[in-house]
Amino acid sequence: MNTQQAGHSANQRSLAVAVVGCGYWGPNLIRNFYENDQAELVAVCDLDPKKLSKIAKRYPNVLTTDAYQDLLNHSGIDAIAIATPVHTHFPLAKQALEAGKHVLVEKPMAMNSKECMELIALAEERKLILMVDHTFVFHGAVRRIKQEVDSGALGELLYFDSVRINLGLFQSDINVVWDLAPHDLSIMDYIVGKAPRTIHATGSCHAGNGLEDIAYITVTFENDLIAHFHVSWLSPVKVRQILVGGKSRMIVYDDLESMEKLRIYDKGITVGEPESDEQRYANLVGYRVGDMMAPNLDLTEALKIEIGHFVDCVLNKQRPITDGQAGLRVVQILEAANESMRTGKTIVINSVGVV
Amino acid sequence: MNTQQAGHSANQRSLAVAVVGCGYWGPNLIRNFYENDQAELVAVCDLDPKKLSKIAKRYPNVLTTDAYQDLLNHSGIDAIAIATPVHTHFPLAKQALEAGKHVLVEKPMAMNSKECMELIALAEERKLILMVDHTFVFHGAVRRIKQEVDSGALGELLYFDSVRINLGLFQSDINVVWDLAPHDLSIMDYIVGKAPRTIHATGSCHAGNGLEDIAYITVTFENDLIAHFHVSWLSPVKVRQILVGGKSRMIVYDDLESMEKLRIYDKGITVGEPESDEQRYANLVGYRVGDMMAPNLDLTEALKIEIGHFVDCVLNKQRPITDGQAGLRVVQILEAANESMRTGKTIVINSVGVV
Amino acid sequence: MNTQQAGHSANQRSLAVAVVGCGYWGPNLIRNFYENDQAELVAVCDLDPKKLSKIAKRYPNVLTTDAYQDLLNHSGIDAIAIATPVHTHFPLAKQALEAGKHVLVEKPMAMNSKECMELIALAEERKLILMVDHTFVFHGAVRRIKQEVDSGALGELLYFDSVRINLGLFQSDINVVWDLAPHDLSIMDYIVGKAPRTIHATGSCHAGNGLEDIAYITVTFENDLIAHFHVSWLSPVKVRQILVGGKSRMIVYDDLESMEKLRIYDKGITVGEPESDEQRYANLVGYRVGDMMAPNLDLTEALKIEIGHFVDCVLNKQRPITDGQAGLRVVQILEAANESMRTGKTIVINSVGVV
Amino acid sequence: MNTQQAGHSANQRSLAVAVVGCGYWGPNLIRNFYENDQAELVAVCDLDPKKLSKIAKRYPNVLTTDAYQDLLNHSGIDAIAIATPVHTHFPLAKQALEAGKHVLVEKPMAMNSKECMELIALAEERKLILMVDHTFVFHGAVRRIKQEVDSGALGELLYFDSVRINLGLFQSDINVVWDLAPHDLSIMDYIVGKAPRTIHATGSCHAGNGLEDIAYITVTFENDLIAHFHVSWLSPVKVRQILVGGKSRMIVYDDLESMEKLRIYDKGITVGEPESDEQRYANLVGYRVGDMMAPNLDLTEALKIEIGHFVDCVLNKQRPITDGQAGLRVVQILEAANESMRTGKTIVINSVGVV
Repeated sequence: MNTQQAGHSANQRSLAVAVVGCGYWGPNLIRNFYENDQAELVAVCDLDPKKLSKIAKRYPNVLTTDAYQDLLNHSGIDAIAIATPVHTHFPLAKQALEAGKHVLVEKPMAMNSKECMELIALAEERKLILMVDHTFVFHGAVRRIKQEVDSGALGELLYFDSVRINLGLFQSDINVVWDLAPHDLSIMDYIVGKAPRTIHATGSCHAGNGLEDIAYITVTFENDLIAHFHVSWLSPVKVRQILVGGKSRMIVYDDLESMEKLRIYDKGITVGEPESDEQRYANLVGYRVGDMMAPNLDLTEALKIEIGHFVDCVLNKQRPITDGQAGLRVVQILEAANESMRTGKTIVINSVGVV
Repeated sequence: MNTQQAGHSANQRSLAVAVVGCGYWGPNLIRNFYENDQAELVAVCDLDPKKLSKIAKRYPNVLTTDAYQDLLNHSGIDAIAIATPVHTHFPLAKQALEAGKHVLVEKPMAMNSKECMELIALAEERKLILMVDHTFVFHGAVRRIKQEVDSGALGELLYFDSVRINLGLFQSDINVVWDLAPHDLSIMDYIVGKAPRTIHATGSCHAGNGLEDIAYITVTFENDLIAHFHVSWLSPVKVRQILVGGKSRMIVYDDLESMEKLRIYDKGITVGEPESDEQRYANLVGYRVGDMMAPNLDLTEALKIEIGHFVDCVLNKQRPITDGQAGLRVVQILEAANESMRTGKTIVINSVGVV
Repeated sequence: MNTQQAGHSANQRSLAVAVVGCGYWGPNLIRNFYENDQAELVAVCDLDPKKLSKIAKRYPNVLTTDAYQDLLNHSGIDAIAIATPVHTHFPLAKQALEAGKHVLVEKPMAMNSKECMELIALAEERKLILMVDHTFVFHGAVRRIKQEVDSGALGELLYFDSVRINLGLFQSDINVVWDLAPHDLSIMDYIVGKAPRTIHATGSCHAGNGLEDIAYITVTFENDLIAHFHVSWLSPVKVRQILVGGKSRMIVYDDLESMEKLRIYDKGITVGEPESDEQRYANLVGYRVGDMMAPNLDLTEALKIEIGHFVDCVLNKQRPITDGQAGLRVVQILEAANESMRTGKTIVINSVGVV
Repeated sequence: MNTQQAGHSANQRSLAVAVVGCGYWGPNLIRNFYENDQAELVAVCDLDPKKLSKIAKRYPNVLTTDAYQDLLNHSGIDAIAIATPVHTHFPLAKQALEAGKHVLVEKPMAMNSKECMELIALAEERKLILMVDHTFVFHGAVRRIKQEVDSGALGELLYFDSVRINLGLFQSDINVVWDLAPHDLSIMDYIVGKAPRTIHATGSCHAGNGLEDIAYITVTFENDLIAHFHVSWLSPVKVRQILVGGKSRMIVYDDLESMEKLRIYDKGITVGEPESDEQRYANLVGYRVGDMMAPNLDLTEALKIEIGHFVDCVLNKQRPITDGQAGLRVVQILEAANESMRTGKTIVINSVGVV
């Protein structure tokens, strides 16, 4: 009988990674880096000794530290994944880039677009990979929606409607928009692939701390494309649903369905051409109804694919799908939403930084 | 064997009613007046001879006519129920009131609040009953929500969220807000019982006729109560769901559920008092989770109860629950929503006419 | 203004029909015959004067009577539809056929197979149409399943599983098997199109009247095809679900779904050939998983189609899909189920009378 | 920075455990013993070196071996958990007991009741704990059902109906009854707490290996209590639902619901007393319908509670809830089901060994 020492056999081209932050999401990054064949999880950092010791018990061969500087100084670490509270993303990512480390940073990328732009510039200057953890972009359902849209099967996009509500953990540093909407905004950014024109948001705060716990965000684009986001920490029921409507087909993505997460409806509208001025006021819109199809999706854990993508991008010097620009675009909408909630006004978005 | 002549045996105090409009909704009014023991359906009016002949076949003893004037002139008719296109509500109701008839008018009550106010004034002057057909207010589920709110079981109201979407019939004279939102606005008006402060709406039109087919409306009240309405003719799936969130309990009303339309969640939030300035930024919000209860509801057809209420109100000279003022309040929000969609601005509502 | 007399304008080849029985189902037959363009509803019979007067109010031009003999004697009546308690089906149908009337009889066709056979013989002798009201056979979902099976899309049939449970009205003359299973047995008879080999049933009675209120029936066929039926009056939830499993595709038919009643799964099994004796015990069965499709179904009321079929069959002297033989086959299984429940034995079915 | 060695700090009264079998279920036992504060996971055994090396990587301080004898010989091991194929349960458990180890054995306990009885006798003789892994008995939903039944809230039990179907992994050594039904039989055994009277089962085999892939089992008890089990590897949809019907209340337990797994219906039946012979054939059964309640359940992982119970029972010499007798009772029904499927007969169960 032998005690087998579990060590990660270094590949020829293996990426040495450290993770900072062992809260809710960090352990998922840790597990996925640990299990990735091309990565080696070298170290984990957190300020909380209890969290660190849990990690140490679980992964005895991984270094643990409460000093972020240890990661920066460690010459064997190629990349740092940051899963800490939002307001620390910028300083931690900046230091990592300055120390020559590639960076994978949790969403939202930073507290404002200025910070995002600074990180983007720094990464370009140092020729380092800067990727934002927009996990849902790597989800089988979202990738399938993207295919349907890009193939033209949906026809012209008419709307994108998202609901992400629950009786949730209240965050003490950010409102519900910054907590939940990044998921859906990153999905929309990926699917729609266009720059928004205006943002309007309304929210409500019931906890006396000035942080909205319910919010509604409307984003408009050219050509009458409209997107809407309902986020809430105050719903008795959990809903995670996105509707994507095209002129020819429409999609319902229900993330809580275990099997049929995506339903593609062969439903759409037809708009007749008015032949006279009188007809302009007549009803020229029809709708058509056909079959529904629920495709068999790739159910690989999205984060596993994402971590693989990050490792690939670093090893092969490729630009990630969810690069700093994608992170910036999401933060721009979050900023605009906050401003709209503060002023009551519709914000016309500055398209700088938008693809 | 005998051919029994089905006539309505007039009660001592029976209300003689005529219905104008045999489109989608009119036949429901006709059937319910026909079956009401205290009413007698005397006549039906429509411009379309095909629709009239269908009614005539179904109710051989009821007079049919394509001339509205016939109803006005008929001295045996006490009340007229109006189920015609929205832009005709005002002229038809006005003529009926001027002819001394009580009026039940389809929702929305009229094309603008000025028209509503004129009808209200006219009815008061003539001492006639003017009721708006806000059917959902008479629905067992809505009445139960009202009870829960009024009894204090829900605690302070935090939000009202409504979704009413479908792949729907496009109306040629009104947008989706005026078509669908009156249902939910009338429910909110009844449940919340407070005057709104601001309205904001965004919509999108994809049919080239200037009529929005998707819209989102946010209504705010004092004390951080927020209401939101999503209406659409462009959804591949049908949703009819209302969430009502209170500090102590929360309700989900799903109108498409056949049995458990209402679920009352013993869920809520607790807000701690900060003891210091520092704590103001800490997380003082907790949430509690208990059982869920789906009450056994009275499933009597809402319209049957409503027709009974109208008949009662006329016979006993009572003010209806959904009187002209209720109709006006709904139209005020619809007007404000249209203005907000046109200008992009948040509309501060004029509380004139609001309870 | 005129009181239009609604009379049914007799077509050149119109079928004059009478309906006996105005309980739960009769009014549906009455309405559908009334609305059918090739039929004329002449008379309605019931012993209960209240039920008759309701019909008379609703259909003032239809004759009403409490004497069945009136229908038999009426020379203007071509066909009689029987919607009375089960034990009266045989005597009423027999008298109708003897009086030269075509017959549509409610399911189950009669109290035992001997009665069924006597009616079949009588109808053949008199060259009259004898049809059993197996309504579900005319349902869009069932017709679509039949198409999928007949086209070979499902591959070899492996099983048919049905659940029809509810907190239901207890019948005082028949058990739950005779009350509910005829629906599902008639669907199975139509879909499978093969003679069963054995029947086994277990039931339980909790009301002290000897009538089972819960029962489970297993029907086996050749080639390992198995069918199972769960019927209950004692379930707190309503379920109406049928699974049809083929080697290549599988279908779920959920009758309570409003839109997607039918889901066709591209799922199946593959069975490998063992290459050696050792392999016979190895796992040679795989399964494949593909997309799911919910076809857009014809949602015409099944009874409307069925009534049309009956009228056509009589006018054009065609054999109905759900003829006396189909009715007999269902009653044979019901009889066998009762015998199995009584004796605890598996009943080998006598294939006489089976297609 | 330090590499923290994660070792399990032995408690004063800590149970040293080994697990044999690292297939589908073994890793869950391993994880739960590893995380239990009163247990120490000492060693893991499996014949497959790949599985062992995965465990070794995951738990570097745990001994791994492919020789079961190593576990038996290891004096530091107090208890062995067996998660291997069913036909090996008996020999492995027997050897463990003979080596003086306490045993937790996967369900079904053994291949037949004779084996079960031999293990029970052996454990009693050696004063060792013998527990069967009937995990669901420790599930919050099942414990709640048990409470409702024991408190009398459900009234007299009328039926127990279970469906556990999926498009599943075919087992090569056991049929679907032995694979899936132990879950539901163990739940029934726990909830009902009575000895069954008869067993009848029908199954069907479509893979040519003589192992049923679909089966229906009916179990009857005294007083008209009936239980039924539908198990299948051939369903396109996954269903895991149990109905428990009492005279006063009824429960639906849907294990696939994420939140409201249990719904307790205030529904039941009332049976009148017939006052005369005539009335015996009249309908004396009514039903009542009230609210539904979905209790907030303890969602602790059932296996965690079970492992805690096993550790407690060993350390404190208590009899486990799911002891060898419980395991035997389940195997007796499985045996009877197999015999019934083979012979087509209803099996009268020998109540030896039944509580």
